[in-house]
Amino acid sequence: MKYIRFKSNNKISWGILEGNNIKELSGNYVLSSTKETNNTFNINDVEMLSPVDPGKVIAIGLNYKSHLGDRPAPEVPEPFFKLPDTLIGHNDDIVVPKEAHQNDLTVQPEAELCLVIGKGGKRITQQNALSHVFGYTCGNDVSVRDWQKNDLQWWRAKSCDTFTVVGPWIETEVDAANSQIVCRINGNEVQNQNTSDLLHGVPRIIEFVSSMITLNPGDVIMTGTPGEPKNMYEGDIVEVEIEGIGILSNKIKNES
Amino acid sequence: MKYIRFKSNNKISWGILEGNNIKELSGNYVLSSTKETNNTFNINDVEMLSPVDPGKVIAIGLNYKSHLGDRPAPEVPEPFFKLPDTLIGHNDDIVVPKEAHQNDLTVQPEAELCLVIGKGGKRITQQNALSHVFGYTCGNDVSVRDWQKNDLQWWRAKSCDTFTVVGPWIETEVDAANSQIVCRINGNEVQNQNTSDLLHGVPRIIEFVSSMITLNPGDVIMTGTPGEPKNMYEGDIVEVEIEGIGILSNKIKNES
Repeated sequence: MKYIRFKSNNKISWGILEGNNIKELSGNYVLSSTKETNNTFNINDVEMLSPVDPGKVIAIGLNYKSHLGDRPAPEVPEPFFKLPDTLIGHNDDIVVPKEAHQNDLTVQPEAELCLVIGKGGKRITQQNALSHVFGYTCGNDVSVRDWQKNDLQWWRAKSCDTFTVVGPWIETEVDAANSQIVCRINGNEVQNQNTSDLLHGVPRIIEFVSSMITLNPGDVIMTGTPGEPKNMYEGDIVEVEIEGIGILSNKIKNES
Repeated sequence: MKYIRFKSNNKISWGILEGNNIKELSGNYVLSSTKETNNTFNINDVEMLSPVDPGKVIAIGLNYKSHLGDRPAPEVPEPFFKLPDTLIGHNDDIVVPKEAHQNDLTVQPEAELCLVIGKGGKRITQQNALSHVFGYTCGNDVSVRDWQKNDLQWWRAKSCDTFTVVGPWIETEVDAANSQIVCRINGNEVQNQNTSDLLHGVPRIIEFVSSMITLNPGDVIMTGTPGEPKNMYEGDIVEVEIEGIGILSNKIKNES
């Protein structure tokens, strides 16, 4: 099932996507049980929004062997935080701040499988973890490598406005342990790997994070990125495609 | 003026504190203009809550010379993120997770001057910065030093549930550039310094953070901690006192 959040006539709605047809729901599918209204929309007539409005976004670093470089594989998941209010959705512009593009800093995408928490909890076990997941979506953890390397912590490196990209919708039927992730810049493939290569899979991530921090409905966890992405520049189109979910596409724009 | 958030008869309210008397307001003082209702409360009859419910909490690392140790003074502010849903207020217990206290990890308070954003904005100048501040409060950036040292990023080191302590109320009349900050554990002073020693003051912090990230009403910025705090253990009472604001007091409890 595909769950979609969208705007039509300045009204934000939630719905179920079937083909090009959206059946509107009575409310936020992540936070409450909903029913269908009688309204339907064509996906080509609406503005698609990020399919979730999370209270927190937790991302996992160094979670594919192919992304480690010289760094050793971490024994436990290595979370960090991205700011929820830097979230954008499908077709929104990724805006590179002046301080980055005017100094020719290295800006890269990171294609990631994202999960959306449906049922909150603390100290969730690996055995129960998947029952806490509402569904999955594509994510792009936009990163400025110079800041990531030189700042004390990853804040502006990964949480400038627009740097948390999630969408195009939430798919509930995904095998999180066996889905192909592809990233393309202007159609050229720059990342391509299967989530079976995750060092720490979704159940382990949920167990580990929730041992310290209560997870709430709508929280997003970005599970990590494979390989070594290439640079993005103004005007580029970056796509994250995950098998069984769809394609998240965004254009790069320099802040003026 | 002192703004306070509190609970009475299971209802959350906002109010103005004068002496021991709370005049209830019609809504959240940070998010909208409010007026007094006719209800009054005595502070001893209510449960005090964290005086703000932020969308994000940004803290500044290495912002007092006395806290640097061997580390060089940073040329720019060094922000990191704490999770808003780990926030607690005055008199709430700080809960040390099992993994920390069972392994005798080092848990310490960090007394900090916190500001609450009143008027949001992007690329706020130093000249305009203070007009974006609603007021100030005391903060305790609870830190597990072993995790802070060994994890890839500061997540559980500073954002386990209950590790973001803010209160007891918001004071609007504070000289952020000249206020004494004291931290006590069981009455023994472990930190004592003036905010005039901040390496990067409040206007510069606001300018720098807002150059990358839009600040919104209610956002909290913790400005950094002085000196070298001592360890906290179960049963300890930790107090953060800031001149002109008041005392934020919390008890340490081990997770069972």
